[in-house]
Amino acid sequence: MKTEPGLHGHHISQQFNEELEDIKTNLLEMGGLVEQQLTDAIQSIIEADSEVASRVEAADVEVNEMELAIDESCHRILARRQPAASDLRLVLGIIKAINDLERIGDEAAKVARLAGELAQQGEPSKGYVEIRHIGERVRAMVNMSLDAFARYDPEAALAVAREDNNVDMEYGSAMREMITYMIEDPRSITRVLNIIWALRSLERIGDHAKNIAEHVVYMVVGEDVRHAGLSAMEEQVSSEE
Amino acid sequence: MKTEPGLHGHHISQQFNEELEDIKTNLLEMGGLVEQQLTDAIQSIIEADSEVASRVEAADVEVNEMELAIDESCHRILARRQPAASDLRLVLGIIKAINDLERIGDEAAKVARLAGELAQQGEPSKGYVEIRHIGERVRAMVNMSLDAFARYDPEAALAVAREDNNVDMEYGSAMREMITYMIEDPRSITRVLNIIWALRSLERIGDHAKNIAEHVVYMVVGEDVRHAGLSAMEEQVSSEE
Repeated sequence: MKTEPGLHGHHISQQFNEELEDIKTNLLEMGGLVEQQLTDAIQSIIEADSEVASRVEAADVEVNEMELAIDESCHRILARRQPAASDLRLVLGIIKAINDLERIGDEAAKVARLAGELAQQGEPSKGYVEIRHIGERVRAMVNMSLDAFARYDPEAALAVAREDNNVDMEYGSAMREMITYMIEDPRSITRVLNIIWALRSLERIGDHAKNIAEHVVYMVVGEDVRHAGLSAMEEQVSSEE
Repeated sequence: MKTEPGLHGHHISQQFNEELEDIKTNLLEMGGLVEQQLTDAIQSIIEADSEVASRVEAADVEVNEMELAIDESCHRILARRQPAASDLRLVLGIIKAINDLERIGDEAAKVARLAGELAQQGEPSKGYVEIRHIGERVRAMVNMSLDAFARYDPEAALAVAREDNNVDMEYGSAMREMITYMIEDPRSITRVLNIIWALRSLERIGDHAKNIAEHVVYMVVGEDVRHAGLSAMEEQVSSEE
């Protein structure tokens, strides 16, 4: 992945530069692992593949360890290097982004656990189309948010926030459909509930991707756009150009 | 609430001391508001009180603003004061804790929205006993985690983490009961689902209270106990005595 070469080029200390690049690289590695977890989790549910499902759950330990290690590196940089301005925003942005990545990993592990239960409950269920569809969208959101992070690209971050609105709408319509299934066929309740939990986890993953996108805007623009709504975010990003 | 007087008493700069105390006070104020939101949300659902419910939703805006303001104060302290050691841990602990508090506020607002829907769906529903019971437990957890923060008390933090296990068990048994109701009476599905969402929000609130407790342990002991499990947390706390 590309990194913006000019952004941290003003440091006297070459080593400090390298430390900052290192934690950014570590974040993107952690992001790559989480993306893989998510891809596998969706596959495990659609193909009822319990082997892939246990791989996702196992990866969660690694993701957690990465979060702690990167967090510690950030604390060390804050204590020793006392960064200011855009460097400080980068370190704080990373501290927040790894927290969101860790939660994405958690939700992916939940989806994988549900895959195991659904595989045991037999007969292909309604709701797989929705899982595949929403799963693909949030996977793309996670990918795009990491890309925005790597390239310091607030426009890409904005696209993630916009996409979250679409995912929320699709999620709402999928949920209404699932409730209709349950009412029509009460014997399917336990099974459809597992689909509902999986859809909910996917929707949460979209929220976390949006959070990461907001951290990117904060890092680049210097404005905290959380809770501000999409139009305020658009304004901040466009005023930067 | 008490604050530990000796902990930041070693600063040459009296003003820095005051700044640290100020953000800690702000966090506790934000915590107080979130606690009230939670109390109101539980009441609104049990008493089908839509006036209280809209108060909870309105408070969410204030909570979000508090989060941004405290976050900004923390960034300013990091940039200007370049804190080290326990001061740095305090500032980073606050940055993380306000994020958890904000999410607790979000979940409380969700519960309040569900109260509105449930009030419209008429007839007292099964599941209110469970909501009251689990709601009371997680409300106590939030209170205890803030108290642990105010007093720098890792023992109290440990008690919060222990209580989270109990809440998870009660949540699991309440969920099984709700699923049984749905299967026995499919006409109740929509309504019972709303109870399920509320229970799930309460359970998430317990998780966030546990996160705050983990931040307290990190601040006092200097060890990151996230993902480490309860026994590792107990070990860290007891080795401190």
